[in-house]
Amino acid sequence: MADLPSHLKGGEIRDLGGRLVTPALIDCHTHAVFGGNRAREFEMRLEGATYEEVSRAGGGIVSTVKATRAAPEEILLVEALARVDALIAEGMTTIEIKSGYGLDLETELKMLRTARSIMARRAVRVITSFLGAHAIPPEYAGRADAYIDEVAIPTLEAAHQEGLVDAVDGFCEGIAFDTAQIGRVFDKAKALNLPVKLHAEQLSHFGGTALAARYGALSADHLEHATDDDVKALAASGTVAVILPGAFYTIRETKAPPIEFLRAHGVPMALATDCNPGSSPLTSLLLVMNMGCTLFRMTPEEALAGVTRNAAQALGLDDVGTIETDKRADLAVWNVADPAELSYRIGFNPLHSRIFGGTT
Amino acid sequence: MADLPSHLKGGEIRDLGGRLVTPALIDCHTHAVFGGNRAREFEMRLEGATYEEVSRAGGGIVSTVKATRAAPEEILLVEALARVDALIAEGMTTIEIKSGYGLDLETELKMLRTARSIMARRAVRVITSFLGAHAIPPEYAGRADAYIDEVAIPTLEAAHQEGLVDAVDGFCEGIAFDTAQIGRVFDKAKALNLPVKLHAEQLSHFGGTALAARYGALSADHLEHATDDDVKALAASGTVAVILPGAFYTIRETKAPPIEFLRAHGVPMALATDCNPGSSPLTSLLLVMNMGCTLFRMTPEEALAGVTRNAAQALGLDDVGTIETDKRADLAVWNVADPAELSYRIGFNPLHSRIFGGTT
Ligand SMILES: [Zn+2]
Ligand SMILES: [Zn+2]
Repeated sequence: MADLPSHLKGGEIRDLGGRLVTPALIDCHTHAVFGGNRAREFEMRLEGATYEEVSRAGGGIVSTVKATRAAPEEILLVEALARVDALIAEGMTTIEIKSGYGLDLETELKMLRTARSIMARRAVRVITSFLGAHAIPPEYAGRADAYIDEVAIPTLEAAHQEGLVDAVDGFCEGIAFDTAQIGRVFDKAKALNLPVKLHAEQLSHFGGTALAARYGALSADHLEHATDDDVKALAASGTVAVILPGAFYTIRETKAPPIEFLRAHGVPMALATDCNPGSSPLTSLLLVMNMGCTLFRMTPEEALAGVTRNAAQALGLDDVGTIETDKRADLAVWNVADPAELSYRIGFNPLHSRIFGGTT
Repeated sequence: MADLPSHLKGGEIRDLGGRLVTPALIDCHTHAVFGGNRAREFEMRLEGATYEEVSRAGGGIVSTVKATRAAPEEILLVEALARVDALIAEGMTTIEIKSGYGLDLETELKMLRTARSIMARRAVRVITSFLGAHAIPPEYAGRADAYIDEVAIPTLEAAHQEGLVDAVDGFCEGIAFDTAQIGRVFDKAKALNLPVKLHAEQLSHFGGTALAARYGALSADHLEHATDDDVKALAASGTVAVILPGAFYTIRETKAPPIEFLRAHGVPMALATDCNPGSSPLTSLLLVMNMGCTLFRMTPEEALAGVTRNAAQALGLDDVGTIETDKRADLAVWNVADPAELSYRIGFNPLHSRIFGGTT
């Protein structure tokens, strides 16, 4: 109190009963707007169905694209709100939401508008990422280059025109797009003065991290198969490593991201839900913190920084993520004695209250 | 409705809007009454502390025994209620709670009384298990036999005298008690006409499952290291296999319980939280269902049976766990279209309402 700048003295003093106060939580990587769900596919796999059987039954990302294209915007919104509400209940105030299940102009714009409209319904900040380069839609099967040039890039321009895009993302992987294709999208992003980020090295080493670093990306996300050189490139470019343990857990990946090497090179690590209907149908940042510790041996302190300070950096936000004078009062108040309890407990929500821009 | 027995006709009809109704959830294996927490130990381990350093700092089960002995009953109750409330919020109506952090007469009775007193504060049924044979307390270090004969068995008699014991449990493991020691506790249980159950083959193959089967145990719990012969013994004795994925996940065990063999031999599988401050600080049965599927390849149908019908059987209860005429109306109403969604989603609670004995 003695050090409080004089222009902040004399404000209202609220007694929180000695509770722990942290920056409010930030989910910096989600696909929280989508149609349908993939519970039946989850069940079929566990009942022993082969990949082909699941595919024939309409499973996989194509089923989500179909359901998202078919869903009216009001339905997309109602279903997204249920997911956002679960995150809000744990003290989240800022969420990033990606497009990428439309893969056509109309539906990509619908997804981004839906994401933006959440701010009119809930006391949260929504940051949008355009993820046209997420998957190749059925109508462009085998023609990834044509999809990038005919759909992804023109749709990015249209979405930007409407003010719907805060950043540009892509999925750089054998089953999606290569570095040359992502590079064309990133060039357009640069031309539009939009920051970039990338799904990189999730399933294999494919060059995405080096590409992201070369473009000065805000973040490179997943990174299970990132190499030492990739980590050094992120350190040099000031790119945040976004770690997504929910997808690692769900797809039963065995190769963990290079946490020790990221730590050693001072790369800021964020943690996020990757909330999506296929590889991470997850809506708990507290569980993500526990998974970061349990599955990846992050420390509870790193886990907390991962959903606050470093998550803000991954979104290019400098007014949230820490408790500092002249930042927004986005705060979470907890019924715990020690910050480590937030990561230690599993499936428990000790949130006392959430403060968004100074308002409970 | 046409098949409804005539004595049930004419009752109140409640419109649940077409929602899914399941039996209410049952958590058939918890240590939900304890003092303190082990967040600092969790953190120390992740910061690289050795086992000795954690131990010197007062970590491990001994720290929980110390905190539980020191805690007044009112504090134990308040802290247990927070855990029980988290489970209730997901549709739980029946919970098993074990003693085993007292390891002396006074504290074991205090734990069991605390567990029973939850029923006066919340609309739940609490089933107690006496777990005197959980660990060797510091004052009996190196004298496990003396602890069993001088403390565990006399305390069981005293607790039974007070009506505090529904079943008798033990921890059969190299770091705890051997089959001969557990056998003496089980003999006393049989003499008192109490059913038995056992923590068996969690960390190594130690003979607990065969022992449990020989005593006609209600359940054998954990079972990561159970053999084919163990599974056959469970099938022959009608013993439920209680699967505890939270502990498997937290201690980063790599050997999964023999789910396929249990399935093939028709052994009923239950799923529970194992809620405890060391190896499973977990209070979500929905997450346990997901873990059963994701980590152990159980089907969503098996997961649901595991926290309802088979959990009831693991507790020897025949009036809950299924929706049938003349059973208790302990029900959970869900905002999902398909039961598989309960296992598919992670960190999301779609409970609409909980009905306990016919009352919302
Ligand atoms: Zn993603
Ligand atoms: Zn246990």
